[in-house]
Amino acid sequence: MARIINILRNGKAQEEIEVKGWIRTKRELKEFSFIEINDGSSLGNLQAVLNSDLLNYQDIIKRLNTGVSVSIKGILVDSPAKGQKVELQAQEVIIFGDCDPETYPLQKKRHSFEFLRTIGHLRGRTNTIGAVMRVRNACANAIHQFFQSKGFLWVHTPIITASDCEGAGELFTVTNLSLEKIIQDKKDEINYENDFFGRQAYLTVSGQLEAEIMAMSFQNVYTFGPTFRAENSNTSRHLAEFWMVEPEIAFCDLEGDQNLAEEFLKYVFKYVLDHCPEDMAFFNQRINQNVLINAENIINNEFARITYTEAINLLEKSKKKFEFPVEWGIDLQSEHERYLAEELFKKPVIVTDYPKEIKAFYMRLNDDQKTVAAMDILAPGIGEIIGGSQREERLDVLQSRIVECNINGDELWWYLDLRRYGTVPHAGFGLGFERLVQFMTGMENIRDVIPFPRTPMNAEF
Amino acid sequence: MARIINILRNGKAQEEIEVKGWIRTKRELKEFSFIEINDGSSLGNLQAVLNSDLLNYQDIIKRLNTGVSVSIKGILVDSPAKGQKVELQAQEVIIFGDCDPETYPLQKKRHSFEFLRTIGHLRGRTNTIGAVMRVRNACANAIHQFFQSKGFLWVHTPIITASDCEGAGELFTVTNLSLEKIIQDKKDEINYENDFFGRQAYLTVSGQLEAEIMAMSFQNVYTFGPTFRAENSNTSRHLAEFWMVEPEIAFCDLEGDQNLAEEFLKYVFKYVLDHCPEDMAFFNQRINQNVLINAENIINNEFARITYTEAINLLEKSKKKFEFPVEWGIDLQSEHERYLAEELFKKPVIVTDYPKEIKAFYMRLNDDQKTVAAMDILAPGIGEIIGGSQREERLDVLQSRIVECNINGDELWWYLDLRRYGTVPHAGFGLGFERLVQFMTGMENIRDVIPFPRTPMNAEF
Repeated sequence: MARIINILRNGKAQEEIEVKGWIRTKRELKEFSFIEINDGSSLGNLQAVLNSDLLNYQDIIKRLNTGVSVSIKGILVDSPAKGQKVELQAQEVIIFGDCDPETYPLQKKRHSFEFLRTIGHLRGRTNTIGAVMRVRNACANAIHQFFQSKGFLWVHTPIITASDCEGAGELFTVTNLSLEKIIQDKKDEINYENDFFGRQAYLTVSGQLEAEIMAMSFQNVYTFGPTFRAENSNTSRHLAEFWMVEPEIAFCDLEGDQNLAEEFLKYVFKYVLDHCPEDMAFFNQRINQNVLINAENIINNEFARITYTEAINLLEKSKKKFEFPVEWGIDLQSEHERYLAEELFKKPVIVTDYPKEIKAFYMRLNDDQKTVAAMDILAPGIGEIIGGSQREERLDVLQSRIVECNINGDELWWYLDLRRYGTVPHAGFGLGFERLVQFMTGMENIRDVIPFPRTPMNAEF
Repeated sequence: MARIINILRNGKAQEEIEVKGWIRTKRELKEFSFIEINDGSSLGNLQAVLNSDLLNYQDIIKRLNTGVSVSIKGILVDSPAKGQKVELQAQEVIIFGDCDPETYPLQKKRHSFEFLRTIGHLRGRTNTIGAVMRVRNACANAIHQFFQSKGFLWVHTPIITASDCEGAGELFTVTNLSLEKIIQDKKDEINYENDFFGRQAYLTVSGQLEAEIMAMSFQNVYTFGPTFRAENSNTSRHLAEFWMVEPEIAFCDLEGDQNLAEEFLKYVFKYVLDHCPEDMAFFNQRINQNVLINAENIINNEFARITYTEAINLLEKSKKKFEFPVEWGIDLQSEHERYLAEELFKKPVIVTDYPKEIKAFYMRLNDDQKTVAAMDILAPGIGEIIGGSQREERLDVLQSRIVECNINGDELWWYLDLRRYGTVPHAGFGLGFERLVQFMTGMENIRDVIPFPRTPMNAEF
């Protein structure tokens, strides 16, 4: 059985083929009909021509509505129509499943993305969501290929965790206690010793700390798995459940980290342009006309690299009116990041060495005692796409930072052990996978780049 | 920087190299010392020779204890020692992190796997767990390569789900309600409308139903993600959190499903033998002497295919005393499966068409009205490794089965819609990823083939 993407790319006249898929459109003429069939492998449909001398033509053609599943055997012929090299001269049509045009929610017309979210079980059959899911798969595959080719191990860090030191307040609780029973029993307090794990457990917000464990045994590792935030953010950029990629590299400093991240982004964007050219052209035409420019900008430019302190100086010199005033110590806002990447450098910028007060406890303290070896990558049209750091590998400095940041160090005994026994300089970064797909495709709402989005009040399908 | 696996496989005398890793052992002689260094890329260590004329030799050699992290520059020379082609003549040694032999828990001696689980942050530095994690990564990579090369999309089905129709009683609840606050407020019942998703939510037990959604748009898809069971099973084969692989194929029947599963298993086992020969030889020598035989058995034999009814007949004819008596209708027990695969066929066996009473509601009802189009793959020395089925694509039959099985069909409105609008024959299977790694490596306890196992009373690290 042939896939339509291969037929459209490489099909030759006179080939006998069989395709299976779903009808997108039908045009009935007197002596024959055109139908367009899609099998999810490509944006483009394959056009089939059904002559009226086909067996059961009258019955079949009546039933061939949008959404109907079919198998068609026939011969490829050169197509007189524009935009396709070949079409399929049908010799046998089998209908697997009918589709009632009166009730099928996906009629051939424009639907809003909001509406499509309510039919998440069917929206993959639309041009846009179809293209998104193919690009998403290509991104994911590129990520594995990149790291595997460099000898990184894919490590599965735990989803359920007993540690709450990283995401206070935004954690989902995981339990198998019966809440109903607790209330019926009129208990005064929850006894987590009776819970499945014998203690309070949560959904992970990051696999980084466990990835550090693995890097201290295997040198180069990466996570690629789901992470969670119980954050009540109803925005176009937030999901409660999303996939993260987090490489962790032993014997690596902040410069090596930047080099890896730059090479990584270039690889993934190039891979998707190479493997999904039709889908990417579609996004550029229909969704966001900067999609290809933004991708080329990442692929073709050496990223600028500046320190946070230099960034602050540049912003102050810019004489631009920012909503959030610029001074050393502030967290960079979206408007600042956009100015740097889009107006000043006009290419991706890596900003490094942020004030320690605005960054996490595990980032390596610089010699100035004021900044840490952090990096954020900002890209034109996209904003912050990667955040990373060199990790604090010195036991005494890490212990001081834990106290400074009011973190419960007892829970981190194993994290400290890594600095006690054969500690090494190491670094890593994090990439929100859905953010990447959103930027790559130009989709406005992050809920439309994951098959089944989880957001406040929504866990449908 | 060179990785040790490449040096051991391809290193040539006279090459100048730099390696970084952790000391495994040290042997001090009068004029020089041997140290063995490991960087996690291979089972084998690289032996380095440190002559006493090295800068700071006396200080360095004292500190080079097991677990110390180092960088060594030097020249490869032919090794007189057995089992290694080259060794490293050190010219410069840098110590990154010391490791106190008085407190380091991983001294050079045999440790029980039970003990190693208590130091999950260090156990990757042992021969066995190191080999397991490399084989695990190779398995994972093989799975992606197999499906991607066939045009399957990797789809990320949701981890958090509101549906409880598949795993009644074994579900973890996910909530961001404060249990403490509910008790303090002395509420009479839980109002899930105030919970994050506005309803009760759980951790998924399978991505299959959502994978079916995606297959109805994209034809060929697979999931590869974490799944959960809140099952209080303290056995060597159960985890509360484990990764599953679930392909789903449109326009496919049970025979196509069997073909794909057989090809898949052969591919993955062969890939691991090709890519991790040293690790697999180690397992065969130290862990389970049937590991290689079992793998070859899968790779080199055409799988036998019999129906459940034939299997029952063969078991009855065997005259063997089984603990669980054999009659048509029973679920096959491990002893039955082992007899079929190990004694009778001596190769992998696919058993198909099980009684509907012992299988899930979504499996396709056969024309006999008594059996369903299910399959289980049984392998010698391994047992059941894959379970799959053709899915019920006929709306009316599926609806009857839902009623028969006492399932709440209202929740499955979208699943039924797939049969309403362009339904197609389709099939798929499921593979427990940790079970696969366990079988591949011969490891006795499944807790030792996942980086951070989650089991009753255990969510450490």
